Amino acid sequence: MHADSPCPVARTVDLLGDRWALLILRDAFDGVARFSDFQRSLGAARNILSDRLRRLLDAGLLQQQPAADGSAYHDYVLTAAGQDLFPVLVALRQWGERHCFAAGEAHSLLTERSSGHALPYMQPRDHDGQPLPAHATVVRKL
Amino acid sequence: MHADSPCPVARTVDLLGDRWALLILRDAFDGVARFSDFQRSLGAARNILSDRLRRLLDAGLLQQQPAADGSAYHDYVLTAAGQDLFPVLVALRQWGERHCFAAGEAHSLLTERSSGHALPYMQPRDHDGQPLPAHATVVRKL
Repeated sequence: MHADSPCPVARTVDLLGDRWALLILRDAFDGVARFSDFQRSLGAARNILSDRLRRLLDAGLLQQQPAADGSAYHDYVLTAAGQDLFPVLVALRQWGERHCFAAGEAHSLLTERSSGHALPYMQPRDHDGQPLPAHATVVRKL
Repeated sequence: MHADSPCPVARTVDLLGDRWALLILRDAFDGVARFSDFQRSLGAARNILSDRLRRLLDAGLLQQQPAADGSAYHDYVLTAAGQDLFPVLVALRQWGERHCFAAGEAHSLLTERSSGHALPYMQPRDHDGQPLPAHATVVRKL
């Protein structure tokens, strides 16, 4: 594990480098909150889902709160740190749209709620707002 | 697996939802190209590294080419599809910078090559360039 790594990517990947964790977070952004609803959405085995939810709680990405419907259940909802993962999910989604679907093949679409328009492509930009390709950047190591 | 999922996140995560895959890609963006250099950087067991490199080749994210130094070795370099993962790596990095380091704790820094400045924070924006938080978006499912 990379808890002591000076690389922010390594530390993040230690928390998120698991397909179930990323799909649970995707569902949480979509408003899924109940264990049984995660299970239905993901088709994950009960013990795996339970383990991954526990890890996301321990990592401070999800928190439990009383069910919104007043029942005895509890909801799993994103913390502020979990909400901050929105750019990660958008980047994964937009890459998939470009590279994992045949031309014309239908996929779910992330839209702006107020207008219904698809979100513009998100990419790194410089301080003037111009797109910054990878080769125009360099990692300064410690 | 989600090769037939209508969700672009699910398809991407099937390719990338593995900590080694993400760290190999990070290193590839940093210019690492040789098996032994990936091994030194990642500390991964030889068989695991070999398996993950093979998967990234099969997925079309890396390609092999004759070594830049003219030796008998070959280099692993990003394909165009692999290069398109730059926003994913930047999002993972910037989240880690915010949430995985104590205040004042040093970490490697992604900079603009020409100026040396740290990259601005990347986030989803609307068509007017205004930041778009998660709650202002909605996924339109098929």
